[in-house]
Amino acid sequence: MARTVLLPVLLLSFFLLPLASLALTQDFCVADPDLQRHAGRGKINPLIKAAVTPAFVGQFPGVNGLGISAARLDIEVGGVVPLHTHPAGSELLFVTQGTVAAGFISSGSNTVYTKTLYAGDIMVFPQGLLHYQYNAGTGPAVGLVAFSSSNPGLQITDFALFANNLPSAVVEKVTFLDDAQVKKLKSVLGGSG
Amino acid sequence: MARTVLLPVLLLSFFLLPLASLALTQDFCVADPDLQRHAGRGKINPLIKAAVTPAFVGQFPGVNGLGISAARLDIEVGGVVPLHTHPAGSELLFVTQGTVAAGFISSGSNTVYTKTLYAGDIMVFPQGLLHYQYNAGTGPAVGLVAFSSSNPGLQITDFALFANNLPSAVVEKVTFLDDAQVKKLKSVLGGSG
Amino acid sequence: MARTVLLPVLLLSFFLLPLASLALTQDFCVADPDLQRHAGRGKINPLIKAAVTPAFVGQFPGVNGLGISAARLDIEVGGVVPLHTHPAGSELLFVTQGTVAAGFISSGSNTVYTKTLYAGDIMVFPQGLLHYQYNAGTGPAVGLVAFSSSNPGLQITDFALFANNLPSAVVEKVTFLDDAQVKKLKSVLGGSG
Amino acid sequence: MARTVLLPVLLLSFFLLPLASLALTQDFCVADPDLQRHAGRGKINPLIKAAVTPAFVGQFPGVNGLGISAARLDIEVGGVVPLHTHPAGSELLFVTQGTVAAGFISSGSNTVYTKTLYAGDIMVFPQGLLHYQYNAGTGPAVGLVAFSSSNPGLQITDFALFANNLPSAVVEKVTFLDDAQVKKLKSVLGGSG
Amino acid sequence: MARTVLLPVLLLSFFLLPLASLALTQDFCVADPDLQRHAGRGKINPLIKAAVTPAFVGQFPGVNGLGISAARLDIEVGGVVPLHTHPAGSELLFVTQGTVAAGFISSGSNTVYTKTLYAGDIMVFPQGLLHYQYNAGTGPAVGLVAFSSSNPGLQITDFALFANNLPSAVVEKVTFLDDAQVKKLKSVLGGSG
Amino acid sequence: MARTVLLPVLLLSFFLLPLASLALTQDFCVADPDLQRHAGRGKINPLIKAAVTPAFVGQFPGVNGLGISAARLDIEVGGVVPLHTHPAGSELLFVTQGTVAAGFISSGSNTVYTKTLYAGDIMVFPQGLLHYQYNAGTGPAVGLVAFSSSNPGLQITDFALFANNLPSAVVEKVTFLDDAQVKKLKSVLGGSG
Repeated sequence: MARTVLLPVLLLSFFLLPLASLALTQDFCVADPDLQRHAGRGKINPLIKAAVTPAFVGQFPGVNGLGISAARLDIEVGGVVPLHTHPAGSELLFVTQGTVAAGFISSGSNTVYTKTLYAGDIMVFPQGLLHYQYNAGTGPAVGLVAFSSSNPGLQITDFALFANNLPSAVVEKVTFLDDAQVKKLKSVLGGSG
Repeated sequence: MARTVLLPVLLLSFFLLPLASLALTQDFCVADPDLQRHAGRGKINPLIKAAVTPAFVGQFPGVNGLGISAARLDIEVGGVVPLHTHPAGSELLFVTQGTVAAGFISSGSNTVYTKTLYAGDIMVFPQGLLHYQYNAGTGPAVGLVAFSSSNPGLQITDFALFANNLPSAVVEKVTFLDDAQVKKLKSVLGGSG
Repeated sequence: MARTVLLPVLLLSFFLLPLASLALTQDFCVADPDLQRHAGRGKINPLIKAAVTPAFVGQFPGVNGLGISAARLDIEVGGVVPLHTHPAGSELLFVTQGTVAAGFISSGSNTVYTKTLYAGDIMVFPQGLLHYQYNAGTGPAVGLVAFSSSNPGLQITDFALFANNLPSAVVEKVTFLDDAQVKKLKSVLGGSG
Repeated sequence: MARTVLLPVLLLSFFLLPLASLALTQDFCVADPDLQRHAGRGKINPLIKAAVTPAFVGQFPGVNGLGISAARLDIEVGGVVPLHTHPAGSELLFVTQGTVAAGFISSGSNTVYTKTLYAGDIMVFPQGLLHYQYNAGTGPAVGLVAFSSSNPGLQITDFALFANNLPSAVVEKVTFLDDAQVKKLKSVLGGSG
Repeated sequence: MARTVLLPVLLLSFFLLPLASLALTQDFCVADPDLQRHAGRGKINPLIKAAVTPAFVGQFPGVNGLGISAARLDIEVGGVVPLHTHPAGSELLFVTQGTVAAGFISSGSNTVYTKTLYAGDIMVFPQGLLHYQYNAGTGPAVGLVAFSSSNPGLQITDFALFANNLPSAVVEKVTFLDDAQVKKLKSVLGGSG
Repeated sequence: MARTVLLPVLLLSFFLLPLASLALTQDFCVADPDLQRHAGRGKINPLIKAAVTPAFVGQFPGVNGLGISAARLDIEVGGVVPLHTHPAGSELLFVTQGTVAAGFISSGSNTVYTKTLYAGDIMVFPQGLLHYQYNAGTGPAVGLVAFSSSNPGLQITDFALFANNLPSAVVEKVTFLDDAQVKKLKSVLGGSG
């Protein structure tokens, strides 16, 4: 499987990046007054071959109190925005370039909704539900994203499980993943324990 | 002034359009499940040389309960999205093509915030405040818009004043506009009284 | 038309008043504890022959967090509370003296709702929608107003367009008003550009 | 004490009134469209020598979804709006005639806030807190009331305790009131058990 | 009646307790991080033979912003949590030991809902409505309580009426209670006036 | 590793259970009026050696509109409530029996908060964040849970990934899990693709 080949390579580049920047790069230009931003191309993270560049209230104070915020997704060929949730907001994605495969899973019934999205397509992801986007085309893909909150949060499942000090035994206990699998991903993502 | 020359021409095309379509054209393609849309180019209204194509809950039931919705703006050279408010939601605009001059006016102090936006720029418009966008470039402009409500509403000031049966005398009384001005715009926009 | 005669006179008195006081006079007496106010007669603005005296959270801190606030309207014979919105709250008007003509315009369809109100009448104005009140009787009119927010805001359309530095050319572009009309009202309301 | 003399008289009139009308009389005139009401003088309840005439969403459907509603208080000399709460909304009272003594008690510290209000005075009562109003003058008093909800509810403590089938023993257990007191008020207010 | 015998005894112990502690004892142990508490047995108040131990945001800062909080009820044989409301939150009660008689009264119709609850039973009390709990068994009862707010408030009717300086004449005016009854309870609960 | 031995055994019992019942068993007894429930011991799911018995609005209509709901957790020795989120509500856990190890992971920084909870301990889990509980003692553990919503939802990560038809290749793409791991868990949890 290609993934196992890929990981050692990524491992190398991983140590060159601060951990926090894996998920969120900050490439919005600040304007005055603080009600405008430029959403330039984000810094691609080699692990996921993608950039998620948020303009939440922390990066873009002008949205404070307005119940809305933004992000830009840059996904290279083969890149992926891994499985994640926004605990505090629904998401609306505009695909503006390339081809994006996106999906989310409902709560309760665990029903899967997947779509292939082309430039001009819009998709919504209800608050708190697991979802993903990946490049399903032959060139770079770009998405512009809005949220129903000025601070929707972002919890990438892999980072929550494998990029911190949650002990491997606990991860295994609560996910049923094998010990080798957990340790492999902890190694890639910088987790300990 | 160019405006006075333009209006008689627009008057003609006006009668070919149903009134409601002046403000909102509906060109989103419905997908299944109802959590996806295609936001194609809207039908340009010759009066404003622009198209505002909403994907509010009425056009896009999938956003029901999610606190978010969308619209697409197509603004031709010389076109304008006239002064308006969204009574029930804040707006976040992504400019994806061309050059857009945008502005809003704060409540209370009536402070003006104006910006020239290029592709990649983002701007927010707080809930309920008067704002506008117009094409400030030499080619077509496109904006993708998100709202902090599944049903933000749209009230275009000119349509509220001049496209219905609010008597001219009342319009003049509450706006201080001259009688000739009110009657001229009522004629253009299809209002009576 | 009487309006054009009236304006030069008002122009004079205008320069005697700070701009902010045009819309909002502050004549509520502060009591202790801060959960009481006396809503005395407001200071009549000669331009509109009316006084709008707010008791929002800024003037009446006791309503902080309570989701409600108040205002008093005094409208002389011939006076008007010009077309305006409250971006952040619905309004409920009790007419307690005189005769008031009031109206609002719905979003979307631009339907007009107008009523003549006498002492004891109540009318509601939904959040964010354009509305007005004027004296339709032969003596002074008084209205007591409540809002569904401790800080509903107030945006008077004329002040938003003509009492600041929004350039005339932009006003004309986004409202379709004639240049002469815009400049005339800017002159009356103190706007520049 | 005058109260004990008064009660037998009221007892008589009580049986001529349906129980529900004790607290809420409905004398608002319905207008079209349903965004207007006339708040005429309510039907005085002889027990409290007052009328509380609500225009909540049940009586005034036009406020549905607007987060606001109204009531009119008519309080005769000696009359009282007994201790009560609005479980779902804050209240703002405008006194428009006469003299009203009003008060509320904070939660937690049980601090008392009392005021004597004259025509033109405003007072706020935070959501859910016990409060009262009574006529403290020599002529009839009138209050206009707004709420921060289209359906704030009304729970008059005496009616909750003494006008239903909550057993006397339970009332005594949870209020520390004497048995004779409870039975006396149950008799007046129509309660059983 | 047993109550009148009981009160003089309680009167004695009352003066040994600070007033504020009558309603709320604070026996939660603070943990780190502040997202955990230990809800040990509260300090029994001899007047009510019960302890209400809150973990609202004031005692348990970790719930700030989470829209939830907790309390523990310890009710001895014969004990009672007197009639009260939570102005800002609904309550959900888990009975974990003993037998609890609980009830609430609806607004508007004053309908009574009463239940006898055993270990394992759950009951809900809607926001702002009067309710009570008392021990209906032969041993101690324990309840764990959650609220739909981080700061639901607590207003015990008896304390609001009889444990402060609200004048007896006013209490009588707004509750129809007899003067002797009011003075008796003011004496027990420490009120003046 | 014990887990790999355990799974084939569970696999057997799995096919005897409807899939939906894995996560949510419904053992609350319905009372009248619908404001009470009995939260008896849930039906243990052999896969997780635990029962999660919700009293959300779907099972307990009485909480409709009250912003609160409940659940009961029964966790046998060795049992676990696997990693999950509640997309629409914060959770407050009362441990009433046994010893529970619980933890959650913050968004953004992926910080881990873990605690060992004994009878009487309380812990909160903010809305939408990944968390888990497992039995860390030598006897059965019981938890009573409240939520800040009448319908908080439940999304168990393993069920979202492995108990539906989300293709294995997609799961691997968006989680970086190995193909063998994904197929193993899909087999256990009944997923296809």
